[in-house]
Amino acid sequence: MYKNKKITKPIYIGDIQIGGISPVSVQSMTKTPTSDVNQTVNQILNLSDNGCDIVRCAVPDEKSALALKDIVQNSPIPVVADIHFHYELALKAIESGVNGLRLNPGNIRDKSKITDIVQNANKKNIPIRIGVNFGSLPPVGSIGKTKGISRHKMGVEELPKIANINSNQYSQVEHMIRTALWEINILESLKFYNIKISMKAFDIETTVEAYRGISKIVPYPIHLGITESGTKDSGSIRSAVGIGMLLYEGIGDTIRVSLSDDPVEEVKAGNNILKALNLKQTGVTLVSCPGCARADVDIIKLANQVDKITQKSKSKLKIAVMGCEVNGPGEAKDADLGIAAGVGKAVIFKKGKKEKIVNSDTMLDEFEKEIRKMENKIT
Amino acid sequence: MYKNKKITKPIYIGDIQIGGISPVSVQSMTKTPTSDVNQTVNQILNLSDNGCDIVRCAVPDEKSALALKDIVQNSPIPVVADIHFHYELALKAIESGVNGLRLNPGNIRDKSKITDIVQNANKKNIPIRIGVNFGSLPPVGSIGKTKGISRHKMGVEELPKIANINSNQYSQVEHMIRTALWEINILESLKFYNIKISMKAFDIETTVEAYRGISKIVPYPIHLGITESGTKDSGSIRSAVGIGMLLYEGIGDTIRVSLSDDPVEEVKAGNNILKALNLKQTGVTLVSCPGCARADVDIIKLANQVDKITQKSKSKLKIAVMGCEVNGPGEAKDADLGIAAGVGKAVIFKKGKKEKIVNSDTMLDEFEKEIRKMENKIT
Repeated sequence: MYKNKKITKPIYIGDIQIGGISPVSVQSMTKTPTSDVNQTVNQILNLSDNGCDIVRCAVPDEKSALALKDIVQNSPIPVVADIHFHYELALKAIESGVNGLRLNPGNIRDKSKITDIVQNANKKNIPIRIGVNFGSLPPVGSIGKTKGISRHKMGVEELPKIANINSNQYSQVEHMIRTALWEINILESLKFYNIKISMKAFDIETTVEAYRGISKIVPYPIHLGITESGTKDSGSIRSAVGIGMLLYEGIGDTIRVSLSDDPVEEVKAGNNILKALNLKQTGVTLVSCPGCARADVDIIKLANQVDKITQKSKSKLKIAVMGCEVNGPGEAKDADLGIAAGVGKAVIFKKGKKEKIVNSDTMLDEFEKEIRKMENKIT
Repeated sequence: MYKNKKITKPIYIGDIQIGGISPVSVQSMTKTPTSDVNQTVNQILNLSDNGCDIVRCAVPDEKSALALKDIVQNSPIPVVADIHFHYELALKAIESGVNGLRLNPGNIRDKSKITDIVQNANKKNIPIRIGVNFGSLPPVGSIGKTKGISRHKMGVEELPKIANINSNQYSQVEHMIRTALWEINILESLKFYNIKISMKAFDIETTVEAYRGISKIVPYPIHLGITESGTKDSGSIRSAVGIGMLLYEGIGDTIRVSLSDDPVEEVKAGNNILKALNLKQTGVTLVSCPGCARADVDIIKLANQVDKITQKSKSKLKIAVMGCEVNGPGEAKDADLGIAAGVGKAVIFKKGKKEKIVNSDTMLDEFEKEIRKMENKIT
């Protein structure tokens, strides 16, 4: 955790704490039909196995809402139901035992229906995430009732100053923040405070400024993400830039990377963001050099082999793969374990000190042995 | 360019301006033996074709230094020679016509040799990048001569304050900054100011704080990178977090992503970081939804197909691929062109407005036609 971490009001999704001083959790979303229990549970097991802490399932119809019962019972991780407009589906999802809802009360509109959802969520102590998305904001005129959100000791007049918004211009960022406050206000007016917030956009600047703004105003935990971020490669990078920057400045309690790819890739990307910022409690961190005309061996192949054998390790080891016997051990001096490969031979080193010399043809096996030894010591 | 961009002293590597108000350029490094002209030129052509602006080649021996002559003549982009310790190799690389050097004068030590390099670089107007790397810093005691770097109107006493460093502790960040100033001072004392700086580490916090510190002190353009960042997936994400954050706050004139992978992947990752921050002048930006139980089609496949057909486009189009006919056009309303796929049919839309409805089996072809039409209009 960063020393400048913004400490938010903790909430619980199942047994996972979000906010407070809890570690940042990684979320994903199933892409199978939720009504298909087998497919969905299998995808969740795979996600969990790859380091997913919380999973969300879309609930487009009644069959899906009912299927959630078996899904929740067979899921090793907490399950959140994603509801768009349908009040009955929210109630059925709660009945099915989900651990959280993602639901914008502004989409449901009818106060008695929202009250019904909130009362049922309260009974089971289920939090609701308000997910403000740039692409589906309500019209500007329709959220005029945010005036006097006294719980946060501010009126809308102060928003531009607090959120550092240029007050001469009603920007998209301001509209996102006002929408969030409007949605929050609907729940707070019903005395429901078990809330989590997200402010997603595709554009990094919009996303970052919206999150910065809302996190200055409300005490609720923050769910970070970039919407429609793209395919695996470009989407991971876009998400890493936006989510990483916010985490580094202390904003964000849980994250989801959205990719047009297998959700396992979302989880891997999320964990890689956390590892890059030393925010991940478990898993190997791989240091490896890019290789250049100075490298005598196929460092790319070796690095990827080591990556593969350490991918699912739960130990928090820092492992280095270097293509240069001369600089390798020095450049990776703070790695727990490293290998520097030269012609025909490789040096295995621990904390920058030479441990042993091995032949190239057995170096991967020898290195794996050392990794497993150290894992057993540490875990 | 961000409004808060730190405007640095411009330098030129071949015809590419770095610093000032120039766009951020993308660099990579060949991984073939530099002495093998054919292999190296082919790799450079491939890099250039994928959007690389400047390429660097390691020069581990004389044969490589001499090969640079043919490489430079056949390269469509400027070539930088990477020199470690050998003074003669630097001179030979300059003779071979390279457009820049990466060389730490502190590694060469002998003042007359450094003078010789500097004079030859001056004659050909070749800049030198000082590349401070966390892994290969000189011992703390050996850089005591930075006192009174009067050109920057400061002495070392003021460094902790300027660089926002905790002065009670001589940190690795401070040591990196002092090392950079020491190296810079060696060149400045010879009246050489055609300088670019990098401050690379594996750790994000170390890297970010080192760059923030040095950029407050010196006027030279900044080359951003994270060292030994790992394999393609984890390394791209680590680099995106570190490089992205710095660019967003206005620091950085040129970037290189280092990956244990084909250097083309480094270039793609670099360009994706720039695109994520709206800093790239050309190339398609793909918006695509992650898909969920609401999507009726294989949105992952479609997004990746569209990514493939637009990968090398030079037009600056924003293209959306959505898995939901209902929300798709709205959520991607600022895309120039989009497709929202439903059961059996897909809607092609322009700037959020429906353009036409096509059948699923021909949707990719139809969409590509529309993309090419729009490219021709815009380019």
